[in-house]
Amino acid sequence: MISVGLIGGTGYTGKYLIKFLHRHTFVEDFSVYANRSSGKYLNELFPEFSGIIENKKIENIMNLSDKHDVYFLALPHGESVKYVPSLIEQNKKVIDLGGDFRLDDKELYDTWYGFKHSVPELLLKKTYGLADISGYGKNVSNLVANPGCYPTSVLLALIPFVKSFSEFINGICIVSYSGTSGAGRTAKEELLLSEMDGNVKAYNVNKHRHYPEIKQELMKYGFDSYLNFTTHLLPVERGIYTTISIHLSQSIPAKNISDVYFDEYSKSGFVRIRNKPPELKWVVNTNFCDINISVNENTAIITSAIDNLIKGASGQAIQNMNKMFGWDEALSILC
Amino acid sequence: MISVGLIGGTGYTGKYLIKFLHRHTFVEDFSVYANRSSGKYLNELFPEFSGIIENKKIENIMNLSDKHDVYFLALPHGESVKYVPSLIEQNKKVIDLGGDFRLDDKELYDTWYGFKHSVPELLLKKTYGLADISGYGKNVSNLVANPGCYPTSVLLALIPFVKSFSEFINGICIVSYSGTSGAGRTAKEELLLSEMDGNVKAYNVNKHRHYPEIKQELMKYGFDSYLNFTTHLLPVERGIYTTISIHLSQSIPAKNISDVYFDEYSKSGFVRIRNKPPELKWVVNTNFCDINISVNENTAIITSAIDNLIKGASGQAIQNMNKMFGWDEALSILC
Amino acid sequence: MISVGLIGGTGYTGKYLIKFLHRHTFVEDFSVYANRSSGKYLNELFPEFSGIIENKKIENIMNLSDKHDVYFLALPHGESVKYVPSLIEQNKKVIDLGGDFRLDDKELYDTWYGFKHSVPELLLKKTYGLADISGYGKNVSNLVANPGCYPTSVLLALIPFVKSFSEFINGICIVSYSGTSGAGRTAKEELLLSEMDGNVKAYNVNKHRHYPEIKQELMKYGFDSYLNFTTHLLPVERGIYTTISIHLSQSIPAKNISDVYFDEYSKSGFVRIRNKPPELKWVVNTNFCDINISVNENTAIITSAIDNLIKGASGQAIQNMNKMFGWDEALSILC
Amino acid sequence: MISVGLIGGTGYTGKYLIKFLHRHTFVEDFSVYANRSSGKYLNELFPEFSGIIENKKIENIMNLSDKHDVYFLALPHGESVKYVPSLIEQNKKVIDLGGDFRLDDKELYDTWYGFKHSVPELLLKKTYGLADISGYGKNVSNLVANPGCYPTSVLLALIPFVKSFSEFINGICIVSYSGTSGAGRTAKEELLLSEMDGNVKAYNVNKHRHYPEIKQELMKYGFDSYLNFTTHLLPVERGIYTTISIHLSQSIPAKNISDVYFDEYSKSGFVRIRNKPPELKWVVNTNFCDINISVNENTAIITSAIDNLIKGASGQAIQNMNKMFGWDEALSILC
Repeated sequence: MISVGLIGGTGYTGKYLIKFLHRHTFVEDFSVYANRSSGKYLNELFPEFSGIIENKKIENIMNLSDKHDVYFLALPHGESVKYVPSLIEQNKKVIDLGGDFRLDDKELYDTWYGFKHSVPELLLKKTYGLADISGYGKNVSNLVANPGCYPTSVLLALIPFVKSFSEFINGICIVSYSGTSGAGRTAKEELLLSEMDGNVKAYNVNKHRHYPEIKQELMKYGFDSYLNFTTHLLPVERGIYTTISIHLSQSIPAKNISDVYFDEYSKSGFVRIRNKPPELKWVVNTNFCDINISVNENTAIITSAIDNLIKGASGQAIQNMNKMFGWDEALSILC
Repeated sequence: MISVGLIGGTGYTGKYLIKFLHRHTFVEDFSVYANRSSGKYLNELFPEFSGIIENKKIENIMNLSDKHDVYFLALPHGESVKYVPSLIEQNKKVIDLGGDFRLDDKELYDTWYGFKHSVPELLLKKTYGLADISGYGKNVSNLVANPGCYPTSVLLALIPFVKSFSEFINGICIVSYSGTSGAGRTAKEELLLSEMDGNVKAYNVNKHRHYPEIKQELMKYGFDSYLNFTTHLLPVERGIYTTISIHLSQSIPAKNISDVYFDEYSKSGFVRIRNKPPELKWVVNTNFCDINISVNENTAIITSAIDNLIKGASGQAIQNMNKMFGWDEALSILC
Repeated sequence: MISVGLIGGTGYTGKYLIKFLHRHTFVEDFSVYANRSSGKYLNELFPEFSGIIENKKIENIMNLSDKHDVYFLALPHGESVKYVPSLIEQNKKVIDLGGDFRLDDKELYDTWYGFKHSVPELLLKKTYGLADISGYGKNVSNLVANPGCYPTSVLLALIPFVKSFSEFINGICIVSYSGTSGAGRTAKEELLLSEMDGNVKAYNVNKHRHYPEIKQELMKYGFDSYLNFTTHLLPVERGIYTTISIHLSQSIPAKNISDVYFDEYSKSGFVRIRNKPPELKWVVNTNFCDINISVNENTAIITSAIDNLIKGASGQAIQNMNKMFGWDEALSILC
Repeated sequence: MISVGLIGGTGYTGKYLIKFLHRHTFVEDFSVYANRSSGKYLNELFPEFSGIIENKKIENIMNLSDKHDVYFLALPHGESVKYVPSLIEQNKKVIDLGGDFRLDDKELYDTWYGFKHSVPELLLKKTYGLADISGYGKNVSNLVANPGCYPTSVLLALIPFVKSFSEFINGICIVSYSGTSGAGRTAKEELLLSEMDGNVKAYNVNKHRHYPEIKQELMKYGFDSYLNFTTHLLPVERGIYTTISIHLSQSIPAKNISDVYFDEYSKSGFVRIRNKPPELKWVVNTNFCDINISVNENTAIITSAIDNLIKGASGQAIQNMNKMFGWDEALSILC
């Protein structure tokens, strides 16, 4: 049984972390730390928790206890670096759900995140926590950078292909659509239902922070050709749908490709290879990533679907915790 | 040909006023006055207008010109009273889309709007602009209080009934559902698509400002029994759906009731009596109000549907202008 | 440990029954019986089940086994009466999710359902399974009629009031809005997303089958005044929102009313009394019913929210099974 | 003044054709011909038309009159070929909104549409009616094949680029998302709101009929490199959003690219070049196509948005009629 500290869990990501921690067999207790919301009850912030989690107050982040065995951080960019070094020094396990430790190269933080990274040595010690990839989990570091939501949907769908067929790839174009919860719980005019109902738009074109993250990981598996990545908002609360178009230098038999995927995920309980393009609703409110591959002459189209708040954030974070402790990785997240 | 001034038209109501004014046969020119947005082009604020309305800047409300023949005010509560008296003094025609002049009794402003009304004499001089009611329009004052969105959907559906069958009414329960655009364009967490998608909620229960407005008008037609009114938010951008349940002291033949409605609206182009409950989408993006009456023993159920931004605000305001000038009332608003 | 037979579970109701049965601690095995879909795998019909329920085929209803301890029936009206009598004779426990046994008076089946009831004696032996009402569950019959979705949302919200304040009620008007899943999984033009997106409509006005069901149950608690009930479709998949307007003969202190509700539900884990109107999303995907009461002079407005497929069907059915066997009633349905 | 015949206009496409024909300055009269719906009033089929178009009956297609000057065909694939040859022979103007005449090469009908084309000579005589492309309209044939909805959104966004920079293109990946109205008005389970609300899915991957249409047109402007095209359903009624990722062999200055677009569309009233990615709602319910180009090193991302039923079907068809007769092309379609 362990004790868990959750730093900054008052947004959408926090909601699901709390839900999963509350019902986790091996979590004895957990505390939620925040700034402005400290002193409030959890079910004031999340009325859904009434009757499930009662009488639990949010602590002030100033009083962060060192009693916990593992710490989850769900903070804005540039905030996690303030807490992580001392936690690691105390030999705590840390899972950061923000972007502060995802990239390996400190220079990229200047370029893409606009801040100078203060603990670049940790960038190299962390584990990039893409939990379903085979081989992951044998040597997990005490610091896990939980992947971005888009990169999760892209990398699970693309790594097996890149691993085996990198040499045949002329170029890859990635188009992702996300529900608005990916933009967080802060009030913004452009995210009002009045604005987004029935609406769609591309955003951050040619400058999304998840692009260097995706490229970094693909290159580890041998990718070295052309790549672009474009993100859009959907008029739904939840889910990411990703379409990956691969321009091949030659045709590859469909059977060879699907073999590679079944091999990669034979031991993962959370990746489902589908024989037709997935529907977003098959995965909403789950920790699954559903993937389909369709190949035709020199084109491969891979589609994937995840819940951005679960597989793309809190669910995968719990899966990472389960792996760090050597538990069944589905604990508390297979509903 | 006339000149029009629009004061405060940078929200959703303003958008449609501008659209209708721009294409109105008899509007030679119009100016939009605002505060924070002054200096901006209209199609910066409303990108939909690109290619339709170009090179038109928002004026500063400090420089309000007296050159216009008619003034529309689309301002927060308590703001219109600052402009209206001097405009009326200058003998201008004024159409106020806010609540500052809808009620007749100045005391009600203390109770329901929380301010002391500074020009109560104008409350009695104004015309309550429920444009489709027969008889309206013969003696329109220079000051028209454009009805609230909910009252429009309720009163058009209920006045003919009350006029003819008031004595048989034991009580009326009104339940209205509105799209979120009724709550305006201001960023609020609870109106984010992430919050409202798939959601519904009642609000302002037993204390909605449109209740005294509805009651005031019904009483003019002889209503004197029990009334309640409850409002809800729908997960859609546009439209109000109202369900009126009438407890009758005795049965009334359906034919008698429908006769009364057809009589009332025989000359209105914008009220459609339906033989089954209307669908909200029949009226969205139009100036129509669709109404159905179903009677069974001592129960009458009346359903009505309008577009809250058009029939419930800007469309009806233009219709009121058309009537004030003696023009065809459908000018510019019958698409 | 028990064995469960589910007859007709290939619609939305079936989906959740299967989900709950699969993860139920005390359900050793379950079989799904159907007609046209027999022979198919469950996860062909419900791709969401892949990775959760594998290799489970739908049986042909012709081969209904008598090995099960309890039978759930999720069939169109008029179909359950064909199976229930022999199951009851075999001393099986039966939970019918359709309407065939909800009404007590056989004549009402002629009037409201259009068929002559073949086993009227069972109407009087059945238990009406409104699972959260205090007192329920002590003498459950072997035949439980699972309440309709609308009646569940209405009765849980209204019974405590009627029980204690019946004499002060002049009349009750009920307005309910339901997601489209309440209309089932059958393809109909008027339920296409293209038709219903952004849409709302009333339907079955003054003739909904749930009206006599609601009235029957209220009368058991002393109700004897005026009642009407109007249903609408919302542009969402899931949930029912009900607004009950009560015309009182005299004011009742709010405290007295809320006491009555807290008393009634002090032992129910699934009814939450709220201090403001509930939001539909607080209950979607749960077995909760959230209720708020707002009283003002001679008006009481009660709002309630449920998930029509869970609390309004499959969740309550499982709760009924849990009660029939004397188990913790939250087993498998408190996520 | 002209007379118009509309063959098969009882679906969504028909609705907007009727709306535009009804209010068109130069359309003296129009008749709607259909099969199953003949004899019905237009406002039975489209209740939105009540109060706008009254007392107009649908004619039986068996009684197709030869009195009309121009004929619109909105029929399933393979149906238009039955009517068009004789109409052309009678020297009528014909605008076909289906796919029967869009492709130039008759062999492609075997491969992509599954029928042998009976009048291949007309394929070469027709004009492909992409109405906003410069140069179009000087020599319009009497037979216009109205472009597919997806090709409209793709080609308007891509032709200027291909025209000028074809030699720098290594490959193009096109991802389009469409509202469900693109799938027509026929009842199908997978298009129910209960299924599609909150949902997204790819479909017809690597085999959409609009692929050869897009390729055919691009090749006319010099395109000869790699191309793929993937289509998806959005959980909205209306609109197509297209994202085009171009892999360039070398960087091209943004200014050069935008010049090319402004040149191409300098005379079109319906294409708007945007300085940021368009929002779908900017174009819904209009005949506009909004386009943005973002270039970064060897990547160009082009996004475009149209209303699939208007610019992607009925609006463009009316625009084509306006051009065929030499009228202002915005007549009746610039609201």
